[in-house]
Amino acid sequence: MSMHTVSLNKAYGGTQGVYRHASHETRTDMTFSVYVPPHAAGTRLPVVWYLSGLTCTHANVTEKGEFRSACAEFSLIFVAPDTSPRGEGVPGDPANAYDFGLGAGFYVDATQEPFARNYRMWSYVTEELPKLVAENFPVDASRQSILGHSMGGHGALTIALRHPDRYRSASAFAPIVAPSQVPWGIKALGGYLGDARQAWRKHDAVALIEDGARLSELLVDYGDADQFLTEQLRPELLQGACEKAKIPLTLRRQSGYDHSYYFISTFMADHLRWHAERLKG
Amino acid sequence: MSMHTVSLNKAYGGTQGVYRHASHETRTDMTFSVYVPPHAAGTRLPVVWYLSGLTCTHANVTEKGEFRSACAEFSLIFVAPDTSPRGEGVPGDPANAYDFGLGAGFYVDATQEPFARNYRMWSYVTEELPKLVAENFPVDASRQSILGHSMGGHGALTIALRHPDRYRSASAFAPIVAPSQVPWGIKALGGYLGDARQAWRKHDAVALIEDGARLSELLVDYGDADQFLTEQLRPELLQGACEKAKIPLTLRRQSGYDHSYYFISTFMADHLRWHAERLKG
Repeated sequence: MSMHTVSLNKAYGGTQGVYRHASHETRTDMTFSVYVPPHAAGTRLPVVWYLSGLTCTHANVTEKGEFRSACAEFSLIFVAPDTSPRGEGVPGDPANAYDFGLGAGFYVDATQEPFARNYRMWSYVTEELPKLVAENFPVDASRQSILGHSMGGHGALTIALRHPDRYRSASAFAPIVAPSQVPWGIKALGGYLGDARQAWRKHDAVALIEDGARLSELLVDYGDADQFLTEQLRPELLQGACEKAKIPLTLRRQSGYDHSYYFISTFMADHLRWHAERLKG
Repeated sequence: MSMHTVSLNKAYGGTQGVYRHASHETRTDMTFSVYVPPHAAGTRLPVVWYLSGLTCTHANVTEKGEFRSACAEFSLIFVAPDTSPRGEGVPGDPANAYDFGLGAGFYVDATQEPFARNYRMWSYVTEELPKLVAENFPVDASRQSILGHSMGGHGALTIALRHPDRYRSASAFAPIVAPSQVPWGIKALGGYLGDARQAWRKHDAVALIEDGARLSELLVDYGDADQFLTEQLRPELLQGACEKAKIPLTLRRQSGYDHSYYFISTFMADHLRWHAERLKG
């Protein structure tokens, strides 16, 4: 698999890169960013996967996420994929809304037309991109963690729940925890996976836990001034599911914070420290 | 003087705001950002002024500058003005270039037509905006520092050199140090101030030092992979002037860094720590 370098900038002693490659999953060119912290030649480093929210590309967190300082301190590689296929011929939301189609892949492999051909973000993020990253960066594949924001928090939780042996830890900022029960998720899962709701359960963190998926622990932050909190995010549903399943969940309500990168960047170093502790050794 | 709030976001325990007001200097609406760190009610805090480079608005550093963590730690208010007047009727570069006119005010009061009416960034940044900020934020006006990037480094150095009693410290990332001697500066100072080069000397850090202006010390970082280093920035000219004038200059060549916010953000906390030490008490 080949990729090409879009940009490289030295930052915090390491290298922030942006890369593009022809994805066989999405049948489009895909862009992603990778930060490699300063390290001794020949060392292999743990990797943290960051999944972004609605409307984002790799660029939002790369520019506003304030993760490089902590990644340099804790020697973490940080990978940020795009949130959907893009480009000529890729179908979007018929009504051009922000919450479906372009920028809103929801980390599923679509089964419905006309999306099934390109919208394969599940396989892209869990299979194709990890292979590409492992081939091209000094990654220790035995030490991986995953986190995400909003729709990307949904992605991080569902991917971790279905790959408990691959990711040592999972966390989220203001995640969608039960897409089957909230408007964003109902629209997206219905649009990509069809009306048979049984198929949605593999892409719904709360349903996965109800169905027996387990993680050793979880860290979730949300802001109580988040405009999407009560309608779309509903962290109490995750709390209830984790309590029943006895999954240790650290759920922190952050007073006065909203849904933006001002919130994410404030707690980014904290999450990365938490992951770094679990990625040791 | 009144202003209105464009946006407010909680970040690192404080508040990142963006504000707009009708400027009597530029005769336009002007937008700026202010970060106020967490603080006890009634406290007045030191303030750091950040002047941005060519093409920037307040938004670049606000989103990419990674200053809030350090400002919260050191209790600094951080103000980021725009780099020029903007809006209907404001003349730009006749050739629409990025290095003159909109986004390129160069922190001077223009004397040449058609720019003299609106391009009054010197008075805006040194007089009008400080008054507005002092009226609306918990600022201790006896504790101010200034820093900037590129064209904004030029602004920070010249403003500090001409107000040695107002700013306790001044620093810059990759500043233009001698605009009279480099293409960006010759175009800008000629365009705003006319061909009589004597008038340029008050807006040229190296010339100001040659003409007797003094500062107790200076901190300047630049990257040796900066694409503008040898033609536009020429830090050696500042080094020479400071040596002759016996101004203690800490000039750091940062290996592998370029002109971008990846460079600035890497060293931002370091500069803010340096300023905070000088703003104590």
